[in-house]
Amino acid sequence: MTPGALMRAEIGEQPAVLASAVADCKEAREVGALLRRRPPRFVLLAARGTSDHAALYAKYLLEVGLGVPSGLASPSTLTVYDAHPDLRDVLLVAVSQSGGSPDLVETARRAQSCGARVLAVTNAPGSELAAVDLHVDVNAGPERAVAATKTYSAELLALWLVVETWRGGDVRRAEAVAVEAAQHLERAGEIEALAGHLAGTDRLVVTARGYSYATAREAALKLMETTYVSAHAFSGADLMHGPIAMVSRDLPVLAIAPAGAGARALAPVLASLRERAAELVVLGGSAFRAAGEPGYTLREVDEDLSPISDIVPLQLLALKTAVARGLDPDRPGGLRKVTRTW
Amino acid sequence: MTPGALMRAEIGEQPAVLASAVADCKEAREVGALLRRRPPRFVLLAARGTSDHAALYAKYLLEVGLGVPSGLASPSTLTVYDAHPDLRDVLLVAVSQSGGSPDLVETARRAQSCGARVLAVTNAPGSELAAVDLHVDVNAGPERAVAATKTYSAELLALWLVVETWRGGDVRRAEAVAVEAAQHLERAGEIEALAGHLAGTDRLVVTARGYSYATAREAALKLMETTYVSAHAFSGADLMHGPIAMVSRDLPVLAIAPAGAGARALAPVLASLRERAAELVVLGGSAFRAAGEPGYTLREVDEDLSPISDIVPLQLLALKTAVARGLDPDRPGGLRKVTRTW
Repeated sequence: MTPGALMRAEIGEQPAVLASAVADCKEAREVGALLRRRPPRFVLLAARGTSDHAALYAKYLLEVGLGVPSGLASPSTLTVYDAHPDLRDVLLVAVSQSGGSPDLVETARRAQSCGARVLAVTNAPGSELAAVDLHVDVNAGPERAVAATKTYSAELLALWLVVETWRGGDVRRAEAVAVEAAQHLERAGEIEALAGHLAGTDRLVVTARGYSYATAREAALKLMETTYVSAHAFSGADLMHGPIAMVSRDLPVLAIAPAGAGARALAPVLASLRERAAELVVLGGSAFRAAGEPGYTLREVDEDLSPISDIVPLQLLALKTAVARGLDPDRPGGLRKVTRTW
Repeated sequence: MTPGALMRAEIGEQPAVLASAVADCKEAREVGALLRRRPPRFVLLAARGTSDHAALYAKYLLEVGLGVPSGLASPSTLTVYDAHPDLRDVLLVAVSQSGGSPDLVETARRAQSCGARVLAVTNAPGSELAAVDLHVDVNAGPERAVAATKTYSAELLALWLVVETWRGGDVRRAEAVAVEAAQHLERAGEIEALAGHLAGTDRLVVTARGYSYATAREAALKLMETTYVSAHAFSGADLMHGPIAMVSRDLPVLAIAPAGAGARALAPVLASLRERAAELVVLGGSAFRAAGEPGYTLREVDEDLSPISDIVPLQLLALKTAVARGLDPDRPGGLRKVTRTW
């Protein structure tokens, strides 16, 4: 089989998965409506790996779109240290493709016993996690590639649909993301060129601000999993607090800057990087790209939705960079599909 | 001046800074007592760079030691996206050496206007942040080196003293950390040998679980700032979810494993790494080190306190690795002491 064929096929399923999730989002809307009637005071988000980046995205949706303070849970406080926090008025959102990671299942159960309501977002309605309390199935179909792709964008969309209903918004706004995902797939040739550009590096930095920070984190993880490059994600603000010292010609920076407030806040960071003559690659709105710089132009999408489609060219970039390095992203060293951590 | 002389001097001040902070902790105890009388339901922690790792440490103290759910704030939701979350019953803890980072000052003010109480932990009692509401001065004296060292351990201790008082514990337990810090300084020769071992690598992974995850993150940042190595911190659980694919002979792993529940949870990760013949360096309790492996033995300290002294050998490691690479950690590329991000 062609190296990465499995990953490529699942990346390609995203327009259909996203379109059908918007068309048939009864479950997400029911959960959203329930939360609208009985909103929690705080939300804790628990996840690992790729799903942790979906959780990070949800944090922005909750705080910016709904004004509900939220935080990423440290599962180990419950599972390793046996903490008993007071979780009344708290919603714990557990995000997991498989619904089977033992520490997440345990975290969800423990949170429930401490008074929290639990919402599980999984691609596995029959899983242990799905059975804990509220559940939204992301309905992405079986994912066989080790590197999660379609379940990531489907998790983002499911979380968006819940929050959009909760805030009384218009879920049809999400119809745009399937269209954008399809358009990115048609532009795979542009990504191929960028992959050639990055194939020779052993380390790079990925940066963004706001909603797109989740995209930067997920892009970095996808690159690490498939190409073994040390890809390090920083929010634009944190990059300026120290790590920028290591940025130089041999450490390219990939910036994610779709049109919106996040990219406007990132603009001074991009200016600093250009001033330092860093090797900068921008995937972003045309206003944030510079003439002569390698990159990829993102068309304008509502900023809260853009991470759902923006990840597609970055998944392709990871895949194509891996192949350009002679690797098979369907056979990464030592990874299993379901990681069992305690 | 000797390269790194400033950083070395400030690392060396830590036993005195820590001892005097425990001896004279009136301010931290007053704040802790006030929080004990009127506890918040939820804590949000806001910080950048090194101080963000102090915030991460505080999250474990709050959840494990006090059972108060807490989360790391994303300052950009308030400052970039103009969110108005409902922050009644919330304590926002802002941690900043300088107390002057504009986005933190703005976050603190905005949080207050949304109903939160604000506790600022700074090394600058005259700063804007210190004036917002409650304040604890970490009293580390002026820090002139660009790489923060003594203000980090002093921030951890100040946060520990507040939480320990809040939970009705015994603040004298912290007397041990100054003793341990001094002991690490005496063992600088052992660190010199490790630095020689790591000086040739351009990238490495730092890992830990639980309380020590903050130590891993701070060690990675210190290495990046001073040696320009791509040092990437992962919780042991997250490392197994993907990034372990890139671990190999040319990507050493530095594990932080002081005696305690965190290291016991990390043990299976260490076993996996050894199985993969990764180049592993363990700074940890003797039970977690393997014969013939390079490393450094940490004496047993109460686990909730150990991050305060464990960082000292890692600061020395960053300093000595930088010097071994011919760099001057007092003159890192392009960093300023106060980073102004919005």
